Amino acid sequence: MIRIGIYGYGNLGRGVEAAISNSKDMVLVGVFTRRDPSTVKTETDVNVISANDILDYKDKIDVLVLCGGSATDLPVQTPELVKNFNVIDSFDTHAKVLTHFKNVDEAAKATKHIGVISVGWDPGFFSIARLYSNAFLPDGNDYTFWGKGVSQGHSDAIRRIEGVLDAKQYTVPVKEALDAVRSGSNPELTTRQKHTRLCYVVAKEGADKARIEKEIKEMPNYFADYDTTVHFISLEELKEKHSGMPHGGHVIRTGATGLGLNYKDSIELTLKLDSNPFFTGSILISYARACYRLNKEGKSGCLTAFDIAPKYLIDKDYEEILGHLL
Amino acid sequence: MIRIGIYGYGNLGRGVEAAISNSKDMVLVGVFTRRDPSTVKTETDVNVISANDILDYKDKIDVLVLCGGSATDLPVQTPELVKNFNVIDSFDTHAKVLTHFKNVDEAAKATKHIGVISVGWDPGFFSIARLYSNAFLPDGNDYTFWGKGVSQGHSDAIRRIEGVLDAKQYTVPVKEALDAVRSGSNPELTTRQKHTRLCYVVAKEGADKARIEKEIKEMPNYFADYDTTVHFISLEELKEKHSGMPHGGHVIRTGATGLGLNYKDSIELTLKLDSNPFFTGSILISYARACYRLNKEGKSGCLTAFDIAPKYLIDKDYEEILGHLL
Repeated sequence: MIRIGIYGYGNLGRGVEAAISNSKDMVLVGVFTRRDPSTVKTETDVNVISANDILDYKDKIDVLVLCGGSATDLPVQTPELVKNFNVIDSFDTHAKVLTHFKNVDEAAKATKHIGVISVGWDPGFFSIARLYSNAFLPDGNDYTFWGKGVSQGHSDAIRRIEGVLDAKQYTVPVKEALDAVRSGSNPELTTRQKHTRLCYVVAKEGADKARIEKEIKEMPNYFADYDTTVHFISLEELKEKHSGMPHGGHVIRTGATGLGLNYKDSIELTLKLDSNPFFTGSILISYARACYRLNKEGKSGCLTAFDIAPKYLIDKDYEEILGHLL
Repeated sequence: MIRIGIYGYGNLGRGVEAAISNSKDMVLVGVFTRRDPSTVKTETDVNVISANDILDYKDKIDVLVLCGGSATDLPVQTPELVKNFNVIDSFDTHAKVLTHFKNVDEAAKATKHIGVISVGWDPGFFSIARLYSNAFLPDGNDYTFWGKGVSQGHSDAIRRIEGVLDAKQYTVPVKEALDAVRSGSNPELTTRQKHTRLCYVVAKEGADKARIEKEIKEMPNYFADYDTTVHFISLEELKEKHSGMPHGGHVIRTGATGLGLNYKDSIELTLKLDSNPFFTGSILISYARACYRLNKEGKSGCLTAFDIAPKYLIDKDYEEILGHLL
């Protein structure tokens, strides 16, 4: 059994907890939290331990899955914790990934651990899809569409507006843009042409809804570059219809093969997820499995999804995958 | 530059030839044929060499791409040639892949070469899609649909019927079956429910078309288990409208995540190819690149797509893929 620890217990931590409970080759040693452990209620029967005591578990955990945020948690935690543990994260700040890689790689190599970074579904699964399709179709164009799905960041941004009690924001791919890409016409698409933003907002009593709607639609980076629709609904309706965290998306590469590049091809990966954190948790523990196996083989340093052969991810032996999945 | 040889020059050999001409890090040393080399006309300016002289090229070729058939060529050629070369094949007889693997592995390890087997698009790219989706979604069901596309084997089977001058057969996925799978209802589908077979047949003058149609529709294994449509057309129409080799398909896995498995997810890879052999050729040379790099790292033995980390497949350096594809 591979002994797993979860470091940080929010939505993603719960996703990892569920994924471990659904896998036969892993056991969850404990959930580590910066909060008072007595205040943390887990979904399964598992030890909740103060993050301060993490080093006591150095020899009791094979892989530590980090479930903090990319903005401030992971840039510090991953390079620090990899000094004592094999670790996995889902770092998703594309612009800073090279720095993160180097920090983790240095600390991991010095202590012969492995740190696997950026293995959620994007970056992660979508990154692999982009890599395979670029390798197999070197002449072509890449397109990534997200949604329909809930963006936590955009929902949070709406909630920070004065007069807003609660909100949920869906990112929605534009059907015409998807169709144009799939047709092989290689369109150049602006931000506005690719996705729309759909907002369900609960206003506080007496709040100025027109002002809230205007503030949302004009918010730079988050909404100003998109066609945004705002619906004001009741708190009951929000809880009833919009409490989930569905997501998904499409990675598409269209390109050409043959002498003279006259033959058109397209490759598309589509994900439809009822729950973003549960699926991300499942990916994270697949990479925890790979991390454990590769470290046993003597490998160390920082790895991404690009470095890891598919066979390491799955809880089946090699003859079985040759027989059933090839 | 990676020095490539092509062994066997039919449709797939031409596909590999084109893929090499579209890649910047490879050079085609020669095409090896069992025919009289003077009778073989290549698409690009390349040496055509008798297969009998292959051993003269032992130190002049980094990877030999085998383009023979799975029925009788590859089971003999791959284990034999891997004694002197790193080799790649697209062996696709699922039932015999374990035997093929073991034969190639033994010969390759003894001589410190690598033999990469079964790396077309199915098996190959579709196999990887099945593996990743099984790893990330361990509770679920797999579905593979092929087409719409030309099946050489089925076209050949029709051509062998008395009175048939020429023929093309398309395998077509059934839309209702695809929709049912995508809905997440996990249907159990019979062979007949998944695909139909569409045949364009040119009959010889005076041939009995009713008898030909009956023979096609009742042919065991090839057609009897399918709803088959037969259209008789002229040779001109066949050449004009059905001379290509398009193909494609879908690998779909639907499953569930979360405690109690109440959250439904689906993962789908879709391929649409104007030319089956050109795309297959492109996959083969990506694995030739990986084979070359892994052998340089000291690796030997038989490998499949499951053993090879994505980064080895692409002609870009690691910082570039981290920056642009992650």
